[in-house]
Amino acid sequence: MGTVVALAAQVGGAKLADGLYRLRGRELTVIVNTGDDYEYLGLRFAPDLDTVLYALAGIASVGAGWEPEGETRTVQNMLKALGGPDRPIIGDRALGAPILRTEWLRNERSLTEITMEFSRRLGIQARILPMSDDLVRTYVLTDGGAVTFHEYFSDLACEPKVRGFDYVGAADARLSDEVLDALHATSLEAVIIAPCNPYHAIRPILEVNGMRELLKKRGAPVIAITPIVGGKAVKGSAGKMMRELGREPSALAAAGEYLRIIDGFVIDREDAALAPAVRSLGLEVLVAQTVMRTDENRLSLARAVLDFADTIRETKAAEVGS
Amino acid sequence: MGTVVALAAQVGGAKLADGLYRLRGRELTVIVNTGDDYEYLGLRFAPDLDTVLYALAGIASVGAGWEPEGETRTVQNMLKALGGPDRPIIGDRALGAPILRTEWLRNERSLTEITMEFSRRLGIQARILPMSDDLVRTYVLTDGGAVTFHEYFSDLACEPKVRGFDYVGAADARLSDEVLDALHATSLEAVIIAPCNPYHAIRPILEVNGMRELLKKRGAPVIAITPIVGGKAVKGSAGKMMRELGREPSALAAAGEYLRIIDGFVIDREDAALAPAVRSLGLEVLVAQTVMRTDENRLSLARAVLDFADTIRETKAAEVGS
Repeated sequence: MGTVVALAAQVGGAKLADGLYRLRGRELTVIVNTGDDYEYLGLRFAPDLDTVLYALAGIASVGAGWEPEGETRTVQNMLKALGGPDRPIIGDRALGAPILRTEWLRNERSLTEITMEFSRRLGIQARILPMSDDLVRTYVLTDGGAVTFHEYFSDLACEPKVRGFDYVGAADARLSDEVLDALHATSLEAVIIAPCNPYHAIRPILEVNGMRELLKKRGAPVIAITPIVGGKAVKGSAGKMMRELGREPSALAAAGEYLRIIDGFVIDREDAALAPAVRSLGLEVLVAQTVMRTDENRLSLARAVLDFADTIRETKAAEVGS
Repeated sequence: MGTVVALAAQVGGAKLADGLYRLRGRELTVIVNTGDDYEYLGLRFAPDLDTVLYALAGIASVGAGWEPEGETRTVQNMLKALGGPDRPIIGDRALGAPILRTEWLRNERSLTEITMEFSRRLGIQARILPMSDDLVRTYVLTDGGAVTFHEYFSDLACEPKVRGFDYVGAADARLSDEVLDALHATSLEAVIIAPCNPYHAIRPILEVNGMRELLKKRGAPVIAITPIVGGKAVKGSAGKMMRELGREPSALAAAGEYLRIIDGFVIDREDAALAPAVRSLGLEVLVAQTVMRTDENRLSLARAVLDFADTIRETKAAEVGS
């Protein structure tokens, strides 16, 4: 059994990563977006890294997957009582990782090293890696100017129209040795792009210097899962952003965002009728249950995607052999 | 009714300050030790300031006066789960003030301003002021070298023998305008040194450049309350330190620590027999219930001390008049 790399962020990415983890354990590497990281109260928040950590550690809240279960707001209430800000809302358990991350970064440890230490301590066998140890910040371009994704999400409630994105620092960011190792591994079986917002969750990973080239060179198939089902984002603002960027939200449009990167695309059963159109883009297509409401959904989607990768690999091998 | 200044730190200081506050409200200024402040996880902890804040806000824990009531350890448990330190023990509510203080200090607000803002937000009418906005650190001199008081207390559990103290930064620290105003006020009726460890709680305040001179020049009587009752510290390590510095712990020895600063000294009923000896040091003496177990104890000690100050003031006035 080979190794698998997932590119992931957000709750959808964490859920799929969790499904893959249950199947592949230590053979899984999850490369996580850090473009939405932010500084708040002097602390380095890495929402995507932490969301994946909580999911794979089995401590994520069922209702609010970006934070640990049983969350409380004691610190936040005290901050508010003392005249501090009450946005963004941060739980007590969710404060642990940012506090320790900030402290360890100050002590010259790399984000990769810190994330691997958190994983180890939480008993996670898979490798969870930030996309880079260098600082990358995703800016949302609006009519009112460029704002970080965090400001867009937290202060502006995703309201301003999106005109584009800027991935500041990405072109100069270095892929870490651990990311390179995972993608260069001869055992690599598949690269899975999880169902996340293409613009601020996955694109920043792809924009890191060298990442696109590396994915294209890989022998292993690259497969993306649609974040759009029935013309709407499963969660979050992908549909809204897509529309504001001038594309009708659909699984087809989502597939278009990954052209020249992916070999296969997974669409939801609800969108089965779009399969021929996606195929006409030159992509292999899998129709599956992509919305993950239960643990079983995560597992069966992960299994279907890995089988899909097998098929693509075999097809490619047959082509090479013929 | 005139104004009152208390020099305070620790739980004993906070309790007395609370008693004075109930009698004098906004006419009270509490000048608090910052020599035991420390940095931990990048945050500026000010245990004495926070202890006084919680007491006067009426939110201090009854059993553990240095933290707010109803304290939980969620953040600490998460830090530990992620591989972080589990000492010193910090509660969730007690994290609020250090997080916000650190953020505001980073934004160029002074410690005085921040403390006054916290007070205002917590509905406190009295003025709680750090002894200085400049950094002062109390070092405990031991056979193993000099350590900060925080290290001595938290890492070394107060075990090494104390050879002396060093108040680093005190000689260059500036009294804030707010501290100067409080001590220069013509309405000033009394300066009360609360029952605290003389070495690391009160001495740092006295060592701030200009403080001793200012106290000596004041017309208002300066009165200290013994932290030693029946030859033992009411709480903490004052007795141990006193012994290691070569003095037999007693209310008399405690009075000796404040000679040339104070006009009057308050000893406990249990030590009534020491009154003549303390008087022979040239001090006025009050015998009172100094151990504050109940709210009523705080109030009655505060009342007794203010009456004592009245008496001293009248005596002085009579001497001047004669």
